[in-house]
Amino acid sequence: MHRGGLMGKGRLEAFSDGVLAIIITIMVLELKAPHDTDLHALRELVPVFASYILSFVNVGIYWNNHHHMFHATHRVNAAVLWANLHLLFWLSLVPFVTAWMGETNFASLPMATYGVVLLMAAIAYYILQSRIIREQGEDGLVARAVGSDLKGKISPIMYVLAIPSAFVSRWLSGALYVAVALMWLLPDRRIERALAEEQSGH
Amino acid sequence: MHRGGLMGKGRLEAFSDGVLAIIITIMVLELKAPHDTDLHALRELVPVFASYILSFVNVGIYWNNHHHMFHATHRVNAAVLWANLHLLFWLSLVPFVTAWMGETNFASLPMATYGVVLLMAAIAYYILQSRIIREQGEDGLVARAVGSDLKGKISPIMYVLAIPSAFVSRWLSGALYVAVALMWLLPDRRIERALAEEQSGH
Amino acid sequence: MHRGGLMGKGRLEAFSDGVLAIIITIMVLELKAPHDTDLHALRELVPVFASYILSFVNVGIYWNNHHHMFHATHRVNAAVLWANLHLLFWLSLVPFVTAWMGETNFASLPMATYGVVLLMAAIAYYILQSRIIREQGEDGLVARAVGSDLKGKISPIMYVLAIPSAFVSRWLSGALYVAVALMWLLPDRRIERALAEEQSGH
Amino acid sequence: MHRGGLMGKGRLEAFSDGVLAIIITIMVLELKAPHDTDLHALRELVPVFASYILSFVNVGIYWNNHHHMFHATHRVNAAVLWANLHLLFWLSLVPFVTAWMGETNFASLPMATYGVVLLMAAIAYYILQSRIIREQGEDGLVARAVGSDLKGKISPIMYVLAIPSAFVSRWLSGALYVAVALMWLLPDRRIERALAEEQSGH
Repeated sequence: MHRGGLMGKGRLEAFSDGVLAIIITIMVLELKAPHDTDLHALRELVPVFASYILSFVNVGIYWNNHHHMFHATHRVNAAVLWANLHLLFWLSLVPFVTAWMGETNFASLPMATYGVVLLMAAIAYYILQSRIIREQGEDGLVARAVGSDLKGKISPIMYVLAIPSAFVSRWLSGALYVAVALMWLLPDRRIERALAEEQSGH
Repeated sequence: MHRGGLMGKGRLEAFSDGVLAIIITIMVLELKAPHDTDLHALRELVPVFASYILSFVNVGIYWNNHHHMFHATHRVNAAVLWANLHLLFWLSLVPFVTAWMGETNFASLPMATYGVVLLMAAIAYYILQSRIIREQGEDGLVARAVGSDLKGKISPIMYVLAIPSAFVSRWLSGALYVAVALMWLLPDRRIERALAEEQSGH
Repeated sequence: MHRGGLMGKGRLEAFSDGVLAIIITIMVLELKAPHDTDLHALRELVPVFASYILSFVNVGIYWNNHHHMFHATHRVNAAVLWANLHLLFWLSLVPFVTAWMGETNFASLPMATYGVVLLMAAIAYYILQSRIIREQGEDGLVARAVGSDLKGKISPIMYVLAIPSAFVSRWLSGALYVAVALMWLLPDRRIERALAEEQSGH
Repeated sequence: MHRGGLMGKGRLEAFSDGVLAIIITIMVLELKAPHDTDLHALRELVPVFASYILSFVNVGIYWNNHHHMFHATHRVNAAVLWANLHLLFWLSLVPFVTAWMGETNFASLPMATYGVVLLMAAIAYYILQSRIIREQGEDGLVARAVGSDLKGKISPIMYVLAIPSAFVSRWLSGALYVAVALMWLLPDRRIERALAEEQSGH
């Protein structure tokens, strides 16, 4: 299972799990308990709550994809460690843009900034994936699993469209963010299939 | 031990442990240090403290049950990963409703909202359990351990009763929440027994 | 290594590590960045900082002892899981009492409350230890390692003394808290020795 | 792989990962969502954001080095456990000095304090490294990997220079902090090489 390789992936996974768990959870701190106790108080929280759901799903997707990709990875080198930290950096900004977007009721600039952060995270994920493939070789498990990587190519394009859209219509921009999230929520069977082939090939 | 299966459960457990550890701990941030130093200052914290204890126990119960269930689970698929994230989403709202309930001294709407979040978490747990059983098959370890799942059926009924009760009497609603927690605090020997039989059967 | 037993200790350790890591780290959130930039601003933080150091050391001691105790434990049952959650509950209150003590410049009631929380944590640790010993049997690794458990008996006595002392002299009370911490900082070679004997006996 | 030794390193790594993950992530809480929605609001966050990036990189470097060092460590004793907690203590102050530096737009005293915390962390790391080498012996993996440890010697000197520089020119002080970070960002192939030799020697 663990042939050669410079370092095991255990701590990279553990550290990433920790950071992602904190990112996904501290966002809820923005849901500040209202002082009032009527339905109006709850209604005022709707935009904050909506932005929380969107970001929870987005970070969840990253955790999921990260989990799948490292499941197909057995060794990491220094370049992978730093590419991973780079991804975590951009994801760590998600709570900030989520709060800004929610508290300003989805104003244009916050919505565009949200797209910039997601775009940078998508690029960082792509860099990380490339580092792992370079380490494993083009016939490695990740390279074969990723394949044409359609979703990974569509997402940044959608974000690039969503950023200027935020200044035209926040509904359009929001619809693009939701569309990307829904696209990823559909179960990604690519890596699972490649792994299954790997296992049946044994 | 680990026959076939798409993925190990290690990271799902690690990520869930991280999120649950953060949920259970950030609730204490609501216990804001008073500026005064007399007993009156402490007494004012009693409702916040009471709601903290209730939620600490509830999240502790979820961690405990999650621990038992995944102890009897050896492989996870994409559906289980998402069902688990769905459960974590509802549990991540517990600090918010706990704070709201505590700071408003158990007002009706916050208490009802608390019940809604617990009800949704209970449903999410049921979905997660069903996904695992579907993956393992009806004669799998979890299916046998769950059995008639009396507690799992009573809890959502109690929550459904507690939600409207909050508008009649906050004491009644509170008593129902405490009753569900106490019911689960009694050690659940079902899965332990099923595991013991499994082991002795080897 | 892992003979029989109902459950492995892995997740109990992971969850405890997570909660203790969060407890020890969120305390630093009380060290709020001053708006001023002169030495006076730093000097005002001295009591908050002093209480932070004391609590960092105390939680560090608990992590250390927890680490040693579970190193000598191979299986856990439901009673151990709950006794562990009970310990984590009392430790989760440490950030609150630390903040209260620091922000009120070590006033009497906050200092006494600090002692109550530490006393309850010490009792919870004792209960946890007893549950493990009951599970392992009197000739188990933990029972032999604990031995006369002098430190474990002195600590609660010191806390019981420190609580009323806080109303007489905050210096006396503080000295007792520091004394207990220093006593534990001296490396505890008991469990290490028992483990070494175990290993050499193989 | 794991010959003798008092304790495994698993929980030390897990606890450190948890604390470092929290440290690196709670810093983002200082990036408070502005109420305004124009570019001016974002521009006001630039110093807070710049200090966040610097500290994210610094904590990332510590995690990276910690990961490498413990990869070459197989057993830990009580001295190593406490030296590790000592390192985590100084790193836990990074969010505080980061916030102070960012919110005061890099004023002299906050910048000097930042240097003091980084200097103490560098010393704590050196102590931790020494404890591990003492445990492993001078021909151990870490001792050979560290070698002349040029970076480890330059860093504290740079910090010692940066602290008084903060009172002369904040640009000079800032440039020194950035220089140290860049120096470490260059991949450290020392331990990787020593490990590779170790493995090829098998």
